[in-house]
Amino acid sequence: MQKFGVLTLLSDFGSRDAYVGVMKGAIAHINPDLNVIDLTHQIPPQDIAAARFALMTAFPFFPVGTVHVAVVDPGVGSLRRAIAIALGTDLTQPAGYLVGPDNGIFSGVLSQFPILAAVELTNSHFWRTPEPSQTFHGRDIFAPVGAHLASGVSIPDLGREIAPATLVQRNPPTCLQTDTSILGSIQATDHFGSLITTIPASVVDGKSWWLKIGDRTLPGKHTYSDRPPGELVALIGSHGWIEIAVHCGNAQTLLGHQPDLLIEVSWN
Amino acid sequence: MQKFGVLTLLSDFGSRDAYVGVMKGAIAHINPDLNVIDLTHQIPPQDIAAARFALMTAFPFFPVGTVHVAVVDPGVGSLRRAIAIALGTDLTQPAGYLVGPDNGIFSGVLSQFPILAAVELTNSHFWRTPEPSQTFHGRDIFAPVGAHLASGVSIPDLGREIAPATLVQRNPPTCLQTDTSILGSIQATDHFGSLITTIPASVVDGKSWWLKIGDRTLPGKHTYSDRPPGELVALIGSHGWIEIAVHCGNAQTLLGHQPDLLIEVSWN
Amino acid sequence: MQKFGVLTLLSDFGSRDAYVGVMKGAIAHINPDLNVIDLTHQIPPQDIAAARFALMTAFPFFPVGTVHVAVVDPGVGSLRRAIAIALGTDLTQPAGYLVGPDNGIFSGVLSQFPILAAVELTNSHFWRTPEPSQTFHGRDIFAPVGAHLASGVSIPDLGREIAPATLVQRNPPTCLQTDTSILGSIQATDHFGSLITTIPASVVDGKSWWLKIGDRTLPGKHTYSDRPPGELVALIGSHGWIEIAVHCGNAQTLLGHQPDLLIEVSWN
Repeated sequence: MQKFGVLTLLSDFGSRDAYVGVMKGAIAHINPDLNVIDLTHQIPPQDIAAARFALMTAFPFFPVGTVHVAVVDPGVGSLRRAIAIALGTDLTQPAGYLVGPDNGIFSGVLSQFPILAAVELTNSHFWRTPEPSQTFHGRDIFAPVGAHLASGVSIPDLGREIAPATLVQRNPPTCLQTDTSILGSIQATDHFGSLITTIPASVVDGKSWWLKIGDRTLPGKHTYSDRPPGELVALIGSHGWIEIAVHCGNAQTLLGHQPDLLIEVSWN
Repeated sequence: MQKFGVLTLLSDFGSRDAYVGVMKGAIAHINPDLNVIDLTHQIPPQDIAAARFALMTAFPFFPVGTVHVAVVDPGVGSLRRAIAIALGTDLTQPAGYLVGPDNGIFSGVLSQFPILAAVELTNSHFWRTPEPSQTFHGRDIFAPVGAHLASGVSIPDLGREIAPATLVQRNPPTCLQTDTSILGSIQATDHFGSLITTIPASVVDGKSWWLKIGDRTLPGKHTYSDRPPGELVALIGSHGWIEIAVHCGNAQTLLGHQPDLLIEVSWN
Repeated sequence: MQKFGVLTLLSDFGSRDAYVGVMKGAIAHINPDLNVIDLTHQIPPQDIAAARFALMTAFPFFPVGTVHVAVVDPGVGSLRRAIAIALGTDLTQPAGYLVGPDNGIFSGVLSQFPILAAVELTNSHFWRTPEPSQTFHGRDIFAPVGAHLASGVSIPDLGREIAPATLVQRNPPTCLQTDTSILGSIQATDHFGSLITTIPASVVDGKSWWLKIGDRTLPGKHTYSDRPPGELVALIGSHGWIEIAVHCGNAQTLLGHQPDLLIEVSWN
């Protein structure tokens, strides 16, 4: 059993109540020595798409074997499944684990990493209580199961195996690509007001490129300060997607809220 | 001495300044191996009632022996006492500890758990400095005392014993109960806009019930998704009180701010 | 090698995205047993002055040898240097370390503690990757270097030595002092709306004093509750500077936003 497993938490619980602290209490009950890391708890209430994006972009930066517990769960208490997934290609050392509701929150990670095993959390032995509340599975099921996983319990012990093909998917529309351009959309905005597109940075690797949004055309740059403060810049974001930012400013504010805007990136 | 004691922090310090970080620095000075967990630091400034509720609802979910340091302290530097309390019935293994100002912040927990011992924090040996600031006892007294407690120091060493009956109380009005109904009020709202009443869920256990708020009557349900998105739902909240929520919405926004509204729950 | 080093994080990343979590993932890769403490991640975007103040006031409260990683970095990807600094007077046991961009963010700490050594982070061996992103040096350079420092790597190994005199400074204007008064300004506001001046509390130590702001004169007090709720109070703040607050209220709201206001403190 690994003594100092790493477990991350992601939710829409905000920071005003003690909900996140209570999940950590439930974890400390099981193993107070785990290294518990908050990804974010400021996902907008019930916004599965935002949670999917945050989890997908954080996953690759954590150590092998990290357990990610994600709770954005509008269907809590309904028939949606509670699940755990092991990712990677090496049965003896999974790349990581996902624990949470089967509502598409994991579909971003799943689009990038192969599934080793998936189970429905039917074994109440690893819950906080065999009679969980109907409204707070983060505390009663997901955090405890995650703590057990990070302490050495194996996936098959947690419940009934399920077929990967039955997992709920919530990925944004696939980009349309030609030889010299690609058409995508905005998949997330961040704290700085940067707009992150669905266009992977790899398509412009080593090329000179430009981006069209509405009636603006922006040349592809490398970093914020390649443009004067206050001006729009298109660049390769740290997540690995092309993004639109404003140097020392806020692209979302400057452009207005346009969630459905198409983005075209071209190169030559 | 327990190596990995658990210590929680709760305050109205917000997350914008380094005040919380500084308390953790003072704790790390004493014992860098403690497991320090934030309950919340987003209590509205000086809102003792909100702090009381968060602490009361989090306390039961932490391991035996956890130390809870709570700092919502409008009277800092005045004559209000600084206190520590051991809770439970077993002198060799208290259920938990409370450390903070004697202003009612602990009265929720105290309404549910028996007091083993209470002291005024008069022994400056366990403070950060024998000459504490007059404005930040969280850093100079409460966090250091909590760190010592979580590292094995015992309550009587911290100061002068005080009579539990003299502790400041700040509980909401007691509910009025008949054989088929109970009259209470709202004691807290949460991040999701759910209104948590003072009516304990135990009164409707196994019964069919309904809730009256203003001119609305809501049937008692089990979970959010028992109602369509956007509609009010009365249910047994995860804290153990009856609450009023909106599935995928915000009850506080829908109902408007009505802190003094009476709530009636009936059953048959 | 110290097993449980303490490492703090400060940034303007906010809490909405997973950026802070991702930095912690990069740290856990290197050493999952470090004690990682958040100072704050709510520095207003690109506000180096606010970061400078938070870091300066937190630094003295952390254990000897603590590593502080600070990332408010509008110049990321440009020619600004990435640096690490060891502070104190004892080469065998530095008071602490600073890691981040050379943009003045450390100048507050540097005004109070002597520099033992400063280096430019040119040794990519201690980065997350030898090809870091151009927009997220917190993840790719600063957090990994901080984790290595807190795990026992020494400053000279991190890169090329630089002359302390070349470090970027961003301190507020020096106060003007006479025998009976001192003229300063506001250097920060906090979550409670208190205005923290550039006037050190030491100038009024043991004296009776008063403060002038605009056309108001406030007598020097010791704590918030020395004035009735809602009224302005001038007092010695917990950071060690004279501050202006409102007991159970908000001085910034009451006075309006006046960042350039002169403050005069007099005594006799």
